[in-house]
Amino acid sequence: MTAPAVGPTLSGSARAAELRAEVTERAAASTERGVTPRLAVVVATEDESTGWYVRSLARAAGKTGVACDTVQLPTDARPALLRDTLTGLSEDPGVHGIILQTPLPPGSVAADLAGAIAPEKDVDGANPLSLGRLVAGLPAFAPATAEAVMQLLDAHAVPLSGRTVAVVGRSTVVGKPLAHLLLDRDATVTVCHSRTAELASVTRRMDVVVAAAGRPGLITAEHVRDGAVVVDVGTNATEDGALVGDVAAEEVGRKAALSPVPGGVGPITTALLLRHTVSAAAVASGH
Amino acid sequence: MTAPAVGPTLSGSARAAELRAEVTERAAASTERGVTPRLAVVVATEDESTGWYVRSLARAAGKTGVACDTVQLPTDARPALLRDTLTGLSEDPGVHGIILQTPLPPGSVAADLAGAIAPEKDVDGANPLSLGRLVAGLPAFAPATAEAVMQLLDAHAVPLSGRTVAVVGRSTVVGKPLAHLLLDRDATVTVCHSRTAELASVTRRMDVVVAAAGRPGLITAEHVRDGAVVVDVGTNATEDGALVGDVAAEEVGRKAALSPVPGGVGPITTALLLRHTVSAAAVASGH
Repeated sequence: MTAPAVGPTLSGSARAAELRAEVTERAAASTERGVTPRLAVVVATEDESTGWYVRSLARAAGKTGVACDTVQLPTDARPALLRDTLTGLSEDPGVHGIILQTPLPPGSVAADLAGAIAPEKDVDGANPLSLGRLVAGLPAFAPATAEAVMQLLDAHAVPLSGRTVAVVGRSTVVGKPLAHLLLDRDATVTVCHSRTAELASVTRRMDVVVAAAGRPGLITAEHVRDGAVVVDVGTNATEDGALVGDVAAEEVGRKAALSPVPGGVGPITTALLLRHTVSAAAVASGH
Repeated sequence: MTAPAVGPTLSGSARAAELRAEVTERAAASTERGVTPRLAVVVATEDESTGWYVRSLARAAGKTGVACDTVQLPTDARPALLRDTLTGLSEDPGVHGIILQTPLPPGSVAADLAGAIAPEKDVDGANPLSLGRLVAGLPAFAPATAEAVMQLLDAHAVPLSGRTVAVVGRSTVVGKPLAHLLLDRDATVTVCHSRTAELASVTRRMDVVVAAAGRPGLITAEHVRDGAVVVDVGTNATEDGALVGDVAAEEVGRKAALSPVPGGVGPITTALLLRHTVSAAAVASGH
């Protein structure tokens, strides 16, 4: 028998529900004006967990009144085909949001191809121009997962100004943009990664630790001080098909406030992709 | 009488001279092929220290065989005029590099206007697309000052992989891009700023401290551990017209290896702007 977790749980469910309610209302109003917000998801993999994710996104879209097309390309699609597909969707006035789903076939670089997504339809902030504008403090869609971390922290009223935050993981889609969103809120941000020496001694000093490395069980009790806030961005599939984060949830949950996986950052991310799509549709139709 | 500094001095002079020699050689070869590399500097200020900087850049260009045009606009130039000027230069096949000099007239946002600089001529990495590509690990010109810090560290063989680095200052032109360049080299990077609580206690733990806040004397002996490496990016004009950095040089120089101001990052930055211009000219002429 193990003791139950005692730290507060930073659920994302309530904020995700609020966002979905907002999306539902705005999508209905848009459809009433003759424009149904439409999201296109470009997929070139048969990866199981990706398939699961895309279907759950399509379901969430359906429930909120956002149309969602999955554009399935061959798993050996060449970069030119992916680029042409993204360009075509960018030029299609009936499509308001575009997502390029990873993993991609070998030879394709996501950030490079995402340059073909029109910035005004780049609802997952994947185009390098969106990223650069975000870094420069100009209006742009932020990568949804990074923005979801901020929404989760805000939903639980976690103070950030002047606080220390470790972002563990330096991916272009999460860690790096998240560092900028945190800096914009006046946090002192440390970006850690696989080459960080003595990770635990670094993260243990922090007020907030965000785990976004894609390594199950990376963050353990020794990585976290008592009373810290820990956000788990990991979505790792286990052998039996379950989803686990980057944090050893039970032991960390005993000393810190921890976001669960699933049910933390994930549902907010999905809701934000839909919100961005509705916003893109509103701009496209002059609202 | 004060004691002389005892820490090693991280001069930028030798590396800058190497870079200028490389530029001189490549510019001459390019001119021989009929293409003289040409840099255009757009200025809309009468700020004294800016004028000094632009003249010194033009002098360095002249010495290395790079043509340099200063495009002086009125100090009340509206954003549209600045944008049109940058667009015109971007379309001019005789111009290979473009710099938008700050400060700008009120109402102009540098990062926004820099979007009008063609990325292939964006030799100071100011276009948000260049910045986003840098963050995403795609080829792009890095902001010259940020790249100069890396060159200075490399010139003095300062190890970075797995080391802790504090970047003090979160500007779009230096602090933020520098954080990414350091991450690319596997450093564990902490970005500090005016809202950082107990700055000294953060920076004192670091192997390397880069001061890029624009505040004279911000980094004192108490901010730095014995034997640390300190790079001073500050270029603050004193009342009597001298140039001082962000570091209290004398007291910090007694316990750390410190880059001087002037003579540290500055000359490398200038040389890199010219190197980028020569590279842009080579690409434009198919070399």
